Amino acid sequence: MKTIAIVGAGMMGSAMSIPLADNGHAVRVVGTHLDRDIIDHAAVHHEHPTLRRPLPDGLRYYQLEALEEALSGADAVIGGVSSFGIDWFGNTALPLVPEDTPVLMITKGLSDTPDGSLRSFPDILTERIKRPVSLNAVGGPCTSYELADRRHSAVVFCGKSKNMLHRLKEWLTTDYYHISLSSDVMGVECAAALKNAYALGVTLAVGLWEAENAGMPDGASMAPAYNPQAALFTQSMREMRAILALTGSDERNIAYGAGDLYVTIFGGRTRMLGSFLGQGIPIHEALQRLPGVTLESAVIAERTVRAIRRLAERGQTEERLFPLLMHIGALLKGAHDQPIPWRSFETNE
Amino acid sequence: MKTIAIVGAGMMGSAMSIPLADNGHAVRVVGTHLDRDIIDHAAVHHEHPTLRRPLPDGLRYYQLEALEEALSGADAVIGGVSSFGIDWFGNTALPLVPEDTPVLMITKGLSDTPDGSLRSFPDILTERIKRPVSLNAVGGPCTSYELADRRHSAVVFCGKSKNMLHRLKEWLTTDYYHISLSSDVMGVECAAALKNAYALGVTLAVGLWEAENAGMPDGASMAPAYNPQAALFTQSMREMRAILALTGSDERNIAYGAGDLYVTIFGGRTRMLGSFLGQGIPIHEALQRLPGVTLESAVIAERTVRAIRRLAERGQTEERLFPLLMHIGALLKGAHDQPIPWRSFETNE
Repeated sequence: MKTIAIVGAGMMGSAMSIPLADNGHAVRVVGTHLDRDIIDHAAVHHEHPTLRRPLPDGLRYYQLEALEEALSGADAVIGGVSSFGIDWFGNTALPLVPEDTPVLMITKGLSDTPDGSLRSFPDILTERIKRPVSLNAVGGPCTSYELADRRHSAVVFCGKSKNMLHRLKEWLTTDYYHISLSSDVMGVECAAALKNAYALGVTLAVGLWEAENAGMPDGASMAPAYNPQAALFTQSMREMRAILALTGSDERNIAYGAGDLYVTIFGGRTRMLGSFLGQGIPIHEALQRLPGVTLESAVIAERTVRAIRRLAERGQTEERLFPLLMHIGALLKGAHDQPIPWRSFETNE
Repeated sequence: MKTIAIVGAGMMGSAMSIPLADNGHAVRVVGTHLDRDIIDHAAVHHEHPTLRRPLPDGLRYYQLEALEEALSGADAVIGGVSSFGIDWFGNTALPLVPEDTPVLMITKGLSDTPDGSLRSFPDILTERIKRPVSLNAVGGPCTSYELADRRHSAVVFCGKSKNMLHRLKEWLTTDYYHISLSSDVMGVECAAALKNAYALGVTLAVGLWEAENAGMPDGASMAPAYNPQAALFTQSMREMRAILALTGSDERNIAYGAGDLYVTIFGGRTRMLGSFLGQGIPIHEALQRLPGVTLESAVIAERTVRAIRRLAERGQTEERLFPLLMHIGALLKGAHDQPIPWRSFETNE
């Protein structure tokens, strides 16, 4: 039995407690300043209020003030903040992680830099903290709801030390949580982040269909609108693969990107935003319709657009190779009347 | 205005008449011996009985006996037979195609050979016919229903002559039918065929979900069953990419394979067969439940399994790199009680 601390009590952070508890580990869940109500609720009711699933009985819950206590003696720490919390995590939680304790980040995202290169969160955090710490991350297609329901989910743990990855896998693997390992941190993280941007792209076709069928009887099937989605899926694969190549990553990571794109298209906030934009609704109005929602997908898309533009300025790529990404970028800047540039997706190889 | 003959009046062959007619071409549709009723019906009612869509008014319909007349003077011929009709097409129709008239095959499939190599239909047909003929093919994600509904569809025409491909594109391109070009015939055809085999793999998870929820009220949502599908999608991408590499194809074709897999999962016979198998229904019973249905997906899967086995025997690959394909192969041989080998999908890179 190990002691594992999860920092951040959002849906995915909390869902990670389920394979851990199923494996008999002692699990401590620490809320950030955003999670106070979640911690209070979970401690009493043993369920997560937004995940709407029961949480294992033996979990111990901590408010932010007890962060140091929660991390003390932990065999591993799971970084469960969203990409907006990554600075807080690096500045506040990471310095308290005991020496030799590996960290496994579930945060998905990328940072762009002035020279156009994209950087993974484990890289950024490693640089920020002065002492050596094993920073690992989770990629691959896995939604928190289905992990909490113990559905078969295939993820990939990435990090620099295979020994450490094997240890984390041993602690977390169950008969429903299937873990591959990879030392290509940038490749895994890049695929995991980009799928958010491109899920906006594919779901534009969902919006197109909804706009055409406004006023149709409820239950009008999506069935006859898959060709346009598949066209955008193909284009997403082309562009994601090219971005993996630009970052020097192993292009085989496109397999994770594809699975992750697939699962992201079918649910949640990214699909809603993409389909609003696909209906021709301007971004400011779309955001008004999604109050209180943190749209990591839009942020990741904007960062990737900036990175590609900078790389293009330096002659390292060309914007015309990323017509779908540039279109998403334009929509996020307010160009709601710009049609999907289908023709620009045509290649000649 | 050009004269285009379509040989084979199945759903996709007939749907191809729509972009052609929209571009003002004279279109002749010739039925095979399987299409007699379709031709009779379409000639009178100007609609396709199984596609259940109107066909353009100006089309001319021919029964098989008038094949030579229909092909005479054609500027291009579209080969619209299924993979089961490829020998008939090569023996009967192809010899009647006028010299210098390009052929565009919509047939998707591969043949396996005793040495384990996979061969594309254009290759096989080119070898069979003695005189030079321009054999091209269509890949990419496009269902006949949605093409007939003029939904945005992105396809790829492949062939050895870029001049010929440009000509075919000029004749067929519309504001909804978007055509890329590729000289990598094997890569495009391989992606187009494999997606049929792997769509069986992904939809096993649909069957798993259905089996678990048998007896649930109607309308029980698929929403909480995407993690397992996405895991199988990722594994499909890995294996398809490895097969593209084995055939010496450009691995960028995985983009078409991904889009095509996406669109195939959501409809039709392949999904039904995959979900029956995923429910644990033995193959012979599944086939009884799908009477009159030609299951190209099963045939393609079996051919690909044979090819990988033969290549493995020759030391050119290893079966363990294709655990999902081998599982599909086992189910198609009757091993209905074999669970999805989730653990064998885990990689360590």
